[in-house]
Amino acid sequence: MVGGGRGAFIGAVHRMAANLDGKIELVAGCFSSDPEKSRLSGEDFFIAPERTYGSYEQMAESEAALPEDSRIDFVSIVARNDLHFRVAKKFLESGIHVVCEKPLALSKAEGDELAAIVESSGLVFALTHNYTGYPMVKEARALVKSGKLGKILKIVAEYPQGYAIPSYNEAVDDGGKISNWRMDPGVSGVSNCIGDIGTHAHNLAGYITGLKLEEIAADLNTFIPGMKLDDDGSMLCRYEGGARGVLFASQISTGEENNLNIRVYGSLASIEWHQEHPNELIVKFADKPREIWRRGNSYNGEDAVKYTRLPFGHPEAFIEAFANVYLAAAEAITDAIGGNFKGNAAYDYPTVDDGVEGMAFIEAAVKSSEANGSWTKL
Amino acid sequence: MVGGGRGAFIGAVHRMAANLDGKIELVAGCFSSDPEKSRLSGEDFFIAPERTYGSYEQMAESEAALPEDSRIDFVSIVARNDLHFRVAKKFLESGIHVVCEKPLALSKAEGDELAAIVESSGLVFALTHNYTGYPMVKEARALVKSGKLGKILKIVAEYPQGYAIPSYNEAVDDGGKISNWRMDPGVSGVSNCIGDIGTHAHNLAGYITGLKLEEIAADLNTFIPGMKLDDDGSMLCRYEGGARGVLFASQISTGEENNLNIRVYGSLASIEWHQEHPNELIVKFADKPREIWRRGNSYNGEDAVKYTRLPFGHPEAFIEAFANVYLAAAEAITDAIGGNFKGNAAYDYPTVDDGVEGMAFIEAAVKSSEANGSWTKL
Amino acid sequence: MVGGGRGAFIGAVHRMAANLDGKIELVAGCFSSDPEKSRLSGEDFFIAPERTYGSYEQMAESEAALPEDSRIDFVSIVARNDLHFRVAKKFLESGIHVVCEKPLALSKAEGDELAAIVESSGLVFALTHNYTGYPMVKEARALVKSGKLGKILKIVAEYPQGYAIPSYNEAVDDGGKISNWRMDPGVSGVSNCIGDIGTHAHNLAGYITGLKLEEIAADLNTFIPGMKLDDDGSMLCRYEGGARGVLFASQISTGEENNLNIRVYGSLASIEWHQEHPNELIVKFADKPREIWRRGNSYNGEDAVKYTRLPFGHPEAFIEAFANVYLAAAEAITDAIGGNFKGNAAYDYPTVDDGVEGMAFIEAAVKSSEANGSWTKL
Amino acid sequence: MVGGGRGAFIGAVHRMAANLDGKIELVAGCFSSDPEKSRLSGEDFFIAPERTYGSYEQMAESEAALPEDSRIDFVSIVARNDLHFRVAKKFLESGIHVVCEKPLALSKAEGDELAAIVESSGLVFALTHNYTGYPMVKEARALVKSGKLGKILKIVAEYPQGYAIPSYNEAVDDGGKISNWRMDPGVSGVSNCIGDIGTHAHNLAGYITGLKLEEIAADLNTFIPGMKLDDDGSMLCRYEGGARGVLFASQISTGEENNLNIRVYGSLASIEWHQEHPNELIVKFADKPREIWRRGNSYNGEDAVKYTRLPFGHPEAFIEAFANVYLAAAEAITDAIGGNFKGNAAYDYPTVDDGVEGMAFIEAAVKSSEANGSWTKL
Repeated sequence: MVGGGRGAFIGAVHRMAANLDGKIELVAGCFSSDPEKSRLSGEDFFIAPERTYGSYEQMAESEAALPEDSRIDFVSIVARNDLHFRVAKKFLESGIHVVCEKPLALSKAEGDELAAIVESSGLVFALTHNYTGYPMVKEARALVKSGKLGKILKIVAEYPQGYAIPSYNEAVDDGGKISNWRMDPGVSGVSNCIGDIGTHAHNLAGYITGLKLEEIAADLNTFIPGMKLDDDGSMLCRYEGGARGVLFASQISTGEENNLNIRVYGSLASIEWHQEHPNELIVKFADKPREIWRRGNSYNGEDAVKYTRLPFGHPEAFIEAFANVYLAAAEAITDAIGGNFKGNAAYDYPTVDDGVEGMAFIEAAVKSSEANGSWTKL
Repeated sequence: MVGGGRGAFIGAVHRMAANLDGKIELVAGCFSSDPEKSRLSGEDFFIAPERTYGSYEQMAESEAALPEDSRIDFVSIVARNDLHFRVAKKFLESGIHVVCEKPLALSKAEGDELAAIVESSGLVFALTHNYTGYPMVKEARALVKSGKLGKILKIVAEYPQGYAIPSYNEAVDDGGKISNWRMDPGVSGVSNCIGDIGTHAHNLAGYITGLKLEEIAADLNTFIPGMKLDDDGSMLCRYEGGARGVLFASQISTGEENNLNIRVYGSLASIEWHQEHPNELIVKFADKPREIWRRGNSYNGEDAVKYTRLPFGHPEAFIEAFANVYLAAAEAITDAIGGNFKGNAAYDYPTVDDGVEGMAFIEAAVKSSEANGSWTKL
Repeated sequence: MVGGGRGAFIGAVHRMAANLDGKIELVAGCFSSDPEKSRLSGEDFFIAPERTYGSYEQMAESEAALPEDSRIDFVSIVARNDLHFRVAKKFLESGIHVVCEKPLALSKAEGDELAAIVESSGLVFALTHNYTGYPMVKEARALVKSGKLGKILKIVAEYPQGYAIPSYNEAVDDGGKISNWRMDPGVSGVSNCIGDIGTHAHNLAGYITGLKLEEIAADLNTFIPGMKLDDDGSMLCRYEGGARGVLFASQISTGEENNLNIRVYGSLASIEWHQEHPNELIVKFADKPREIWRRGNSYNGEDAVKYTRLPFGHPEAFIEAFANVYLAAAEAITDAIGGNFKGNAAYDYPTVDDGVEGMAFIEAAVKSSEANGSWTKL
Repeated sequence: MVGGGRGAFIGAVHRMAANLDGKIELVAGCFSSDPEKSRLSGEDFFIAPERTYGSYEQMAESEAALPEDSRIDFVSIVARNDLHFRVAKKFLESGIHVVCEKPLALSKAEGDELAAIVESSGLVFALTHNYTGYPMVKEARALVKSGKLGKILKIVAEYPQGYAIPSYNEAVDDGGKISNWRMDPGVSGVSNCIGDIGTHAHNLAGYITGLKLEEIAADLNTFIPGMKLDDDGSMLCRYEGGARGVLFASQISTGEENNLNIRVYGSLASIEWHQEHPNELIVKFADKPREIWRRGNSYNGEDAVKYTRLPFGHPEAFIEAFANVYLAAAEAITDAIGGNFKGNAAYDYPTVDDGVEGMAFIEAAVKSSEANGSWTKL
């Protein structure tokens, strides 16, 4: 693991997700750019001192130098956003498989470069767009694929959060509570809100429908005084094949927690899914009763079943969905170790290509908004 | 009543709404442009034959000629959309108060003309933007007014319906089932979906927040083959004072029934209301439990209380909300009869000005969409 | 109308329900046992003074003496519970059809006597067990009848309310706010809570499933200090055919409004319905997605359709359900006037027999509870 | 770990729960009474062959004989119900801390014996009544303790499941699909449904309210042909201090998944919690808006916070709740290892006393039902 030292939220999530199935063990790490902090975190996680590294370069090189059966099977990159690109690049170049927290990079250009490296390396590269790990998201995708929804006409994808609103109310010059790396273009790139959470909504829509988003007309907003990047944004969307849509994300929607949700309207049926009630998928028809598809039932499709751990009524949630990205990556890594790797696209985890598409989405949103909402191609 | 003969949906709703409180009696009408159909409908409704008229002009003139205590107190206009303007004009010019089904007219120009007539007549004019009749919508407005939400930052107003999707699937050249007056620009004006239901979402947002919608960037769509007008549309919104928003309406959102709903995000709290569950208003905060405000409780504000008929837990719904427009109009008409009319703006019913604003909204949406989504002022 | 003067809740509900469809007109009444109060109420309701009576006996006799085409078609009895029996008896004996608020009487003995009178009179007698008027309750009944649920195994019927809890907290000797007629055995009979609302739950279960409740083991409770009757009660139930169940009702369940709800579990499917969300019926299966059946759709059965006024998504609620009892009664009365009355059991309104069964239910509950929960036959 | 070999559901849950936080490692086990099956399971779980035992006695003795720093810290007992008692006894007598799947034993007599052993041993003993591990259940308990609910008047605890209904429909003599150990009195003791899931509802009610259930009047039912034990049961309840209640559990409630839920009605407020939507706690008041308390918020009490891993809106579920029992047990074991064990009652996990109370509950339910529903003391 690179990053994710003491107190880091997403690092802890990755560790729980990786631990869950008892198949992945954390054996080495560089948990902080501060060697002392990295060392202390290593102790917390029961890592041997000699495998707690002070820099990611050192870790990549040292691990790569170990005999194959004792080196790490893959690295989890959970460091600051601006480091993802170079850490991933380093490990890939050292011949080590990668599970990388999103975003892939800070720009589409970096993303393209990484995609080329992944391609030429033949290594496993999984990006933790974790929300597609939910079984009922996979079920939604299966319903679309099966043709049950007919032709997709409209997509509404939302990601309202309210956690940044205290910064608005405190009205401090530097952005208050949110004035951390999320707000620093050097760390977050050209967008905060659309980059951090809008991309999840975009990724979710693409995962479920299989449709490319072709062009958008966006209005990004900054409500928090002193903020340099967007904290809210909405856009009109045009997908390949003629589907239209709306996508919005916000960090100043007071009282919303982590309300990622999506509605996909087809000519024969529609679906609705809410991340905060992830075990249910609502299916609506023109002329028969609305249906609630629930995880863990005999009627679930094979992808949902494959990524389900508990029987119906025993709710699964965020950690399990996250762990499903690891499970899929572990499947690919096991295949790779056994010489049977089928290529990243063959597994059910988000790939470097999803990451590149996310970068294109962010850049198009910013560009459209700066051009006063002009329709902009991804 | 003008319009609303046998089999007409909205006419039946108006009659139930007017009947509900036992204070309004239907005593005269011109129920159809076909005199025979009008006569038969009059029989259905127990109207004296001599007051069942063959034309609205005749009705306006004959009733106006009756002594004050036997003529109608007001007219309800529930005729085809393209007739609203001229029927309303005729009755106003005959000195008769008007309750008019929306839309007010087919263009902003007609709307402006009617507004001037209402103004100069000193008569009551109520437009049945019925959804603002719900007590919990009034409660939402009261919460905004009280400052409990703080500054309004974002508004999401939706009106998805799916009833027209069979026309899409039948793919008939002329638009199939929906190929009626709704689809005829001569009857519906420049827009179908945004005009018919988008205006309700727009009106609701304005009613609750008190904010003017200043400009929009719209994408109107026509999915049904052979359709001349829009059957779906989305737009980005900018409100006075800096609030941003999203508004969409659709008639091809399979499986949606009449899912008008709104979310208003303020700096201190947010509210959410769904027309299909109208007795509840959800209030969300940054740092305390989410609240469900329910109709009929002691904590309801005075406007909600005034327009509530049943105790808590005894649900009220669409008819009661509709009846509340009549109740407010009846209050104004009673005042007017008693010489105490305070002006249309002083009562809690939608006015001709709301109708004019709706017309401006429709025309801006169409103009923006035709200009490829350019930001367009109302 | 007998009873229901100024300020009486249930009288107002009956009037709104009867008004709704524009087919019933209130033309005569005895609105209070106080002649002056009756007279003033008559003025409120636009009743001719000569048909505003000072006593129900006088009203029955005077109306019966009028020519057939000018007398009332039926009487609505909304007086105090202890008067229902004798007022109904008087009108039936005067040859006038009756719509009677529940309870039918204060004892099963009175109920039996009234049933005999109804039977011999050949008149229409409808009891306003209003909750069975909801379209989706009729849909539930249709699903059971169709065999879709298989054999009924378990029934859970609940009716928690919390409106009496202030009396508990004020702990006044006389029962505080609830210390009105509800609490007076002379007015309410042997039970308050089970009699007032438990009977609705019992009636609902019987209406939907068609199963007789055979025996119960009950625990009735009095929480409010100074109360002479029950304010809460629960019971175990055994239905004909082997179904088991639970039924409870309460007036001290803090924060519950009017939460009548029922779940019926069958061997093939189960249903769930909540009065506070009356437009939906939840249907659950062992091996396929849960379904939400919604009012107003093409798949609704004929009984639900017959008693539906508005299209899907335009919610109907309490008043419409209440009005459906009147609608069914009006159908029977129209038939009776035309000489085609098919007998009370042939129409879709609760009959005197339902009332008698309610009385048996109340008496069995009280008896069982007094015998420390012994299983007691109805 | 004792029990929980390949394919065993609850063993897998225990392992995921124990793995989650990365603080507990599975190092030894006896996974089956069949030594070969135990060995293969040991391989699955990466256990050293010499610590994969063929019998639990051997495991207890061998582990106890290891030096303190290499022996297991505690044992997880997930074997068949009839083995819990003797396995627990053996490990306690070997001086090893125990985490034991419920039920504690097959009778209250066994339970009492085990309680005495735990008491005299001074060892940690945690029973995985896992549903009390949910943070919002802890929040519910905190609300009751704080007095916010006032005096508790009524408790409704439910646990409907429908998974056994196929056995009813197949009507096979031996009980069909459910014809496994659950149906065998030799394995399950005197009750199946009440023993397996009714106890969870009972435990939940006691945990939240702190009230002892004093007496019950029960009706246990067997619907599945050929079944020797109950598959459904309902009871009336009387709690210490005067609260009354209803408790039911069922395995033949078609379409219910794992719908454990509870409502606690107090004189000042009431709470409602549903296991299938565990991140929310509904709080109802007589005179102010209903509240939804959500996990992960700043207003959560200290117990809920202590057992929360993820921020608001990132749902937690079954595994995390289960893991919380392990977390609490780990805290106690760590204290014990450090010589600071404060006694089982001082930690937030279910104890042997909860297990004994569960046994008393089961035996009272069976006894009451056999005595035709007589009120029976626990």
